[in-house]
Amino acid sequence: MSKRYIAMIPARLGSKRIPKKNIRYMGEKPLIQYPIELAQKEKRFQSVWVNTESGELGKIAEDMGICFHRRPPELAGDTATNREFTYEFMEKHDCDYVVMINPTSPMLRQDTLRHFLDYVEENEFDTVLSVIAEREEIFYRGEPLNFTLEKKVNSQLLEPAESVCWALTAWRRETFMRLQEQGINPVFGGRLGRFPIPKDESCDLDTPEDWNIAEGILMSRIHPFEERYMEL
Amino acid sequence: MSKRYIAMIPARLGSKRIPKKNIRYMGEKPLIQYPIELAQKEKRFQSVWVNTESGELGKIAEDMGICFHRRPPELAGDTATNREFTYEFMEKHDCDYVVMINPTSPMLRQDTLRHFLDYVEENEFDTVLSVIAEREEIFYRGEPLNFTLEKKVNSQLLEPAESVCWALTAWRRETFMRLQEQGINPVFGGRLGRFPIPKDESCDLDTPEDWNIAEGILMSRIHPFEERYMEL
Repeated sequence: MSKRYIAMIPARLGSKRIPKKNIRYMGEKPLIQYPIELAQKEKRFQSVWVNTESGELGKIAEDMGICFHRRPPELAGDTATNREFTYEFMEKHDCDYVVMINPTSPMLRQDTLRHFLDYVEENEFDTVLSVIAEREEIFYRGEPLNFTLEKKVNSQLLEPAESVCWALTAWRRETFMRLQEQGINPVFGGRLGRFPIPKDESCDLDTPEDWNIAEGILMSRIHPFEERYMEL
Repeated sequence: MSKRYIAMIPARLGSKRIPKKNIRYMGEKPLIQYPIELAQKEKRFQSVWVNTESGELGKIAEDMGICFHRRPPELAGDTATNREFTYEFMEKHDCDYVVMINPTSPMLRQDTLRHFLDYVEENEFDTVLSVIAEREEIFYRGEPLNFTLEKKVNSQLLEPAESVCWALTAWRRETFMRLQEQGINPVFGGRLGRFPIPKDESCDLDTPEDWNIAEGILMSRIHPFEERYMEL
């Protein structure tokens, strides 16, 4: 029997560096609309929830036909952590896996979500993180990590670093809740899978730079440039 | 007395994964035009050169008012390395530093080039690399690099990994040539500086994904979205 999945879209109305991020227009629609539409089109979700402290965001969710999980006031602040609000969400909603879809990744493609769920379905992970694989020369603490100063090699041959991007995360509910109850960090808990997603589907939207990148990628998909060349 | 700088823009006409990359239109102009215009506007360069095997690209360079360094045929192939063609370039052109401006970073801003040169000017490095600092949880060879599974911390607090992006590279001519003559890799040679550049100014243009990202960023600068919010 296949696993039972619930989608959770965490969203706060207050955001610091980019104000009211979730209701700000990203291209043609408010940011929050991207993950909602993405989740709605994926038939394997038995339900789709916005997890928010804001009645206004909750109403938007309901108007768009998804469910509103009202986050309790004590988990609404800046200091509330992922593990706390996800645990509180899991207490209320039975399933095998909670899949967190981050509103700050509006470039996620439907196919990527589908492949991500296939990966969760076909394996027995407790936590599946989405990652971006970077094949570049990397310095860490001022020292070369995946290359040597003695030799320049083609970047295709470098060992990649994988950055966790939080665009998509799946947690097995049973494991997550048990670890949290034991005082163990459940966010990276249990058997851990890493699912690579394309570089142009992830960003953080922490800074105006990130916002530019995301809007730009979305614009280039809507209005692709011609493939044309300079006359020689 | 201030240092003497020469700009070198390496460009081949043959490119594999994205054909004829350098003369392909990126937004409103061919890719090669971006680094040329960038270099031309920086007054500290005593000269600006396209380093290419292609007479056609050389002519474009000359038509735009910069110099054409014709790379010898034996350094024109896929297997010619950076150290070889840069050394051959340095043999012909006297200066203190060669600054390589990569055509695959069309999003570079004028200010960033200026700050990069300030950094070279004010320090005594033999090699200055441009890097992108990534503050994300990073896995390397399947293991956490800059975080622990036991604790989720705010990404602002993570030790960054710095990816070398090759958008801008400065080499002290004397050191580079000496190391190359000694059979030592000069690309990361001597006293090494790392200059961080903003994330939205770098890309590689190795893949169509990269091309989308770059075009998108450029489009979003030309046609910025309104800052507007959803009505609540």
